[in-house]
Amino acid sequence: MPAPLFNPLVANLSTPPIPLVQAWANEYSGAHGPLIDLSQAVPGYPPHPDMLQWLGEAASSTAYAGYGPIEGETMLRQAYARHVASLYSAPVEAANVHITAGCNQAFIAAVMAVAGAGDTVLMTNPFYFNHESTLAMLGVKSRTVECSAAKSFVSDVQTIAGALTPDVRALALVTPNNPTGAIYPPEMLRAVYDLCRANGTWLILDETYRDFLPSASEPPHGLLGVPSWQDTLIQLYSFSKSFCIPGHRLGAILAGPAVVENVAKVMDNLQICAPRAPQAAVARAIEPLTSWREVNRAEIAARANALHDVMGRLPDWRLEAIGAYFAFIRHPFEGESSLEVAGRLAKEAGVLALPGVFFGEGQERFLRFAFANADAATIRLLEGRLAQLSS
Amino acid sequence: MPAPLFNPLVANLSTPPIPLVQAWANEYSGAHGPLIDLSQAVPGYPPHPDMLQWLGEAASSTAYAGYGPIEGETMLRQAYARHVASLYSAPVEAANVHITAGCNQAFIAAVMAVAGAGDTVLMTNPFYFNHESTLAMLGVKSRTVECSAAKSFVSDVQTIAGALTPDVRALALVTPNNPTGAIYPPEMLRAVYDLCRANGTWLILDETYRDFLPSASEPPHGLLGVPSWQDTLIQLYSFSKSFCIPGHRLGAILAGPAVVENVAKVMDNLQICAPRAPQAAVARAIEPLTSWREVNRAEIAARANALHDVMGRLPDWRLEAIGAYFAFIRHPFEGESSLEVAGRLAKEAGVLALPGVFFGEGQERFLRFAFANADAATIRLLEGRLAQLSS
Repeated sequence: MPAPLFNPLVANLSTPPIPLVQAWANEYSGAHGPLIDLSQAVPGYPPHPDMLQWLGEAASSTAYAGYGPIEGETMLRQAYARHVASLYSAPVEAANVHITAGCNQAFIAAVMAVAGAGDTVLMTNPFYFNHESTLAMLGVKSRTVECSAAKSFVSDVQTIAGALTPDVRALALVTPNNPTGAIYPPEMLRAVYDLCRANGTWLILDETYRDFLPSASEPPHGLLGVPSWQDTLIQLYSFSKSFCIPGHRLGAILAGPAVVENVAKVMDNLQICAPRAPQAAVARAIEPLTSWREVNRAEIAARANALHDVMGRLPDWRLEAIGAYFAFIRHPFEGESSLEVAGRLAKEAGVLALPGVFFGEGQERFLRFAFANADAATIRLLEGRLAQLSS
Repeated sequence: MPAPLFNPLVANLSTPPIPLVQAWANEYSGAHGPLIDLSQAVPGYPPHPDMLQWLGEAASSTAYAGYGPIEGETMLRQAYARHVASLYSAPVEAANVHITAGCNQAFIAAVMAVAGAGDTVLMTNPFYFNHESTLAMLGVKSRTVECSAAKSFVSDVQTIAGALTPDVRALALVTPNNPTGAIYPPEMLRAVYDLCRANGTWLILDETYRDFLPSASEPPHGLLGVPSWQDTLIQLYSFSKSFCIPGHRLGAILAGPAVVENVAKVMDNLQICAPRAPQAAVARAIEPLTSWREVNRAEIAARANALHDVMGRLPDWRLEAIGAYFAFIRHPFEGESSLEVAGRLAKEAGVLALPGVFFGEGQERFLRFAFANADAATIRLLEGRLAQLSS
C-alpha cells in the first residue's frame, strides 16, 4: 500500500525558526537573572488601553460577526490611505489598500498575485526567513543580491542592477531591514525603483518596521510621489507591530488597483477576508494613537542608544548594523556556527537571539537581536551576559 | 519599458463569485418585499450573547495581544479534540488539531502540505468554487468525478474508484456538501477511504456544515475509528458557521501529527497563526454552547422542511438535493444560462442564489440556495417570488 505523499517543497522546509529558538529558553537555568528574549520582534510594552477597549468593543459586536469585504473594511482602507497619504505627502486612496491578516500574509498574497511556480523573485542576502520559505514553498525560484557589513547591509544599487535580469518577476526589499535593521535611503530606493520599472519588475517593499524609524520628520522615501508608481510598487505594512497587537493579525498591501484586484482573488482563497473586529478597532486607532506611537518611536530610539553603548564596551562583539527594531551583530566565535553560538547564548547566558544562518548563506558570524523588545535597563544587562559567554 | 506581469494563474481566475452576485441586489426594486439573500452561507440568527461576551473579553485582554503558537491555542486544540472525540467516539488528541483562520484556509493549507504545482487533486462536480480556484491558483491540476442528480448528488464509489489513478495526490470531498447539500452516508465514505488508502491518496474531507446535519444521534462517519486513519484522512471544519462568527475567521484541520507538522510550516508563511482572541473565546464556547447549537440544528431542519413544502408547490422547479444548509435546485428555464436565471431572480424577484455555473461544467440547469440563511416564514415567501419569474 503506497503511503500518501507530502509536498516536498513543504516537507523540505526547515522547522519554523522562532519556536526552535524559543525552546532553548527551557534549558536556561536562570543563573544570570531573567531570560532576555530578543528573538521574535515583540515590543515589550502593552497595547494602548484605548486600543484594547476598541478591540473588545468590536469583537463583542454583532456588526463584525458576519463576513466582510475581501479587500478589507472600508473604514480601515480609508483611514490607512489617509495615514499613508499624509506620511508620504502623496495621493493615495482607499482603492489602493488591501487589508491582510498580518504582513506575512501581505507578502504571500502579493507574491502569488505576481509570480507562480517556476518564476523568479529576487531578494537580498541576508533575507527575512519567511520571505525565503514562502517562495520555496510556492516553487517560486529565488535569487539573492549580497549585502555587505562594509556597507551597513544596505543593498548596493549596482549589484541589484546586475541581478535584474529580464526573468525577475519581483524584487523583495525590506526597509527598515529585517534582520539587519538597515534603513535604505530614499535616493537608493528611487534608483532601485527606476531599475525595476525599466526591467518590468515589481518592487515589493516590506515596511513592517516603518513606525520605528528614528525620525518621522521626513517621509521614508518618495516613491509614492512618482507618477505611475502603481505600475511597479507594492508596499507592505503591519499594524501588528505598530499597535502591539500581533495576536490580532493585521497588515496591509498598498498598490495599484490592478494589484488590489488580483490580491483579492488570492485572499478569497486564502481566507476570504482578514478578521473584521481588529480592522474596525485599528481604523479607530490610527489617528488618535499617533502621539502614542511617537512616544514608542522615541522609546525605541533610546533602546538603540543603550545597545550602542553596551556594544561599545564589548570589543569582541561588533554591532555591524542597527536601525529600527533590529541589530545585526558579529559574534566573536570564529569557526563556530551561528546556531551553536545562539544556542549557547540562550542556555548559558539567558539571551534569546536568532542565528545568522536563518537569514541566508554566509551569515554564520552574525546574530539578529530584536533589541527593541527590551527596555534600556534590560539592554544594559547584555554587557554582563555577553561578556561571560565562554569561547 | 516592459509592464510588470501578473501571475496568469491568478489573473485568469474569475472575479470572486459572492461579491458579483451580491451586487445584483442593488438592481432589485423591492417590488416584492425585502431581499431574500440565499447566496453566501450566513445563518440569519446572531451569535449567542455569551459568545459575543467571550470574544470581547479575549480581544480586550493583553493575554492575546502577542503572538501565539502556530498550531493554535492549546486550550482550543484540546477543547476541539475533546469535542471531536466525543462526536465520533474516537481517540483524538490536541496533537491532531491545527487551527486555521477559517475553513478556506484549512483547505489551502492542507492542499499545500500535500500537493504542489503540477500535482493532481481530485474533486467532485459540482464542487465548492473556492476549492477549484485554490487549486487553479496554485497550479495544482484538478480533475473531477461527476455527481448526478439521479443519485441525489452523492458521489458514486465506482466512479471514484475509476478516477483514482496513481497520480492523484488527494481527493477532496465536502459533506454535508456545498453546493448540493448532499449528505454522504458513512458506508460510502468508508469505501472511498479504503480506495484512497489503497491508492496512497489523501482523503481531504471538508465538514464545514457538519453541525447542521439533521441529527446528532449518530456520528457522521466512522473514519476516525479506523486504525491508522492518520495516514490517509485530513478532516476540515469551520467554527465560523457553527457559532455564527465568520467575521472572526476560525477553522480547524484534524489529521495525523505529520500532517499537522507540515501544515504548521505552511501556516507560518501564510500568517504565522490564526487570530488568537477568537481562539480563546471559542475554546470557552464549545462545551457550554452545545445545547444552543442543537437548537440551531433543529431550526435549520425546520427551514429545510419549509423549503420542501414550498418546492412541492412549484412544479416547474425541482428540488434535486437538500441537506445541511444548502439545496441544489433545477430551474425551469431550459436553454437559459444559470447566470442569467440567477441574475433575473435577484433583480426581478429579490432572491439571491448562486448560479450552477460557479460550481462546475454542466451545472447550468441548477441554482444553489443557502436556504438556512432564512427563517421558515421567509422561505415560504419563495413560492410567490419564484412563481412570478417569467420564462
